[in-house]
Amino acid sequence: MIAKHDQALVLLSGGQDSTTCLYWAMSHFGRDRVTAISFDYGQRHRIELECAATIAATAGVTHSCLPIDTFTALGGDALTDSDVQVGIELDRQTGLPNTFVPGRNLIFLTFAAAYAYQRGIRHLVAGVAQTDYSGYPDCRLQTIVSLQETIRLGMEIDVEIHTPLIHKSKKETIELARDIGALDAMADTHTCYNGKRPPCGACPACLLRAKGFAEAGIDDPLITHA
Amino acid sequence: MIAKHDQALVLLSGGQDSTTCLYWAMSHFGRDRVTAISFDYGQRHRIELECAATIAATAGVTHSCLPIDTFTALGGDALTDSDVQVGIELDRQTGLPNTFVPGRNLIFLTFAAAYAYQRGIRHLVAGVAQTDYSGYPDCRLQTIVSLQETIRLGMEIDVEIHTPLIHKSKKETIELARDIGALDAMADTHTCYNGKRPPCGACPACLLRAKGFAEAGIDDPLITHA
Repeated sequence: MIAKHDQALVLLSGGQDSTTCLYWAMSHFGRDRVTAISFDYGQRHRIELECAATIAATAGVTHSCLPIDTFTALGGDALTDSDVQVGIELDRQTGLPNTFVPGRNLIFLTFAAAYAYQRGIRHLVAGVAQTDYSGYPDCRLQTIVSLQETIRLGMEIDVEIHTPLIHKSKKETIELARDIGALDAMADTHTCYNGKRPPCGACPACLLRAKGFAEAGIDDPLITHA
Repeated sequence: MIAKHDQALVLLSGGQDSTTCLYWAMSHFGRDRVTAISFDYGQRHRIELECAATIAATAGVTHSCLPIDTFTALGGDALTDSDVQVGIELDRQTGLPNTFVPGRNLIFLTFAAAYAYQRGIRHLVAGVAQTDYSGYPDCRLQTIVSLQETIRLGMEIDVEIHTPLIHKSKKETIELARDIGALDAMADTHTCYNGKRPPCGACPACLLRAKGFAEAGIDDPLITHA
């Protein structure tokens, strides 16, 4: 439940989902009670950090970026290791796409909770969606609910993790973005797995984005403004 | 349950508890199936990382050290922030000692699980004890059980987190160390919050250690060998 003066921290990756969440949080908590956080974790597409900063500035919310050098040290995944090719082939052992960083969302949300803890913020907002095609197990509602309980126990804070997109398709997320006035901000978001701007249009992330906009019958501001 | 060829990853801080856990794991899994991991997270007492490396080498187990630069960026706690004095006074707001890093054990165990995931290791061993005087909420069994479930869901691995010291007093931990042949290794462990070697003997961690050895009626090899 959201009380009158509650504050929210939005995990802002710079992509369309987290940007939609930023505007969702602004409409639910009020812009002045929303803060955004990004993570510089050695992602191949660092351009999304610049996008996140631009999106937060345009929205008028405070934005911080926390470094995480651990994933690069762990290595072995396509999003952080430049020796690994991005592909849609599934890992033969795990059945997961090779863009999977084990536990990435668990780490992001736990660090976000630590940041929130220090500032008396008890609402976290994350753009995870279990309808996501990739089937990342850390995007499932069941995982998020379990993590919320773990953080509540481990930090003794009454944290609440909001996932407004959890059951939405890409089409429905884009419709939500339109309905809450987040569509213009989509021009500043980044999606392409290959880090291209304008987007490559061929990687799985670009194709999924295009499909969502097409199904919603809405022009993608990132393409029309390019 | 431990199967015949299962491997274990021990979170080795270089302190007496995690060193006891290393020897516990060696006795339960066999030395060849045990790996140790430490975290370089900007702790004030970096000397414990050298201790961890020495302890692992003496024990004959593989040892890795993963960097985590995020806690220093988060700042605001006595163990990582050189502007904050270590003390036994409790934070007025949270009632926790000012050596508390919010979510530290959650992060350590989640990164350890990611490391284990990549290597097909499914047992984690951590030296947390809920009888610890400080009352860190992330050392409680309830938190660890919840985190185990979160990691199982979030990584889709059948991870098991072992906490052999969870209900033990310092006295009982030292008795266990004696019984499993870990006592000699205690000479290489580090406990002092002030990073002194030989230990300062006056900080809360040194006093707690001395009390444990005194109650067990065992000489501390760190003191007698110094």
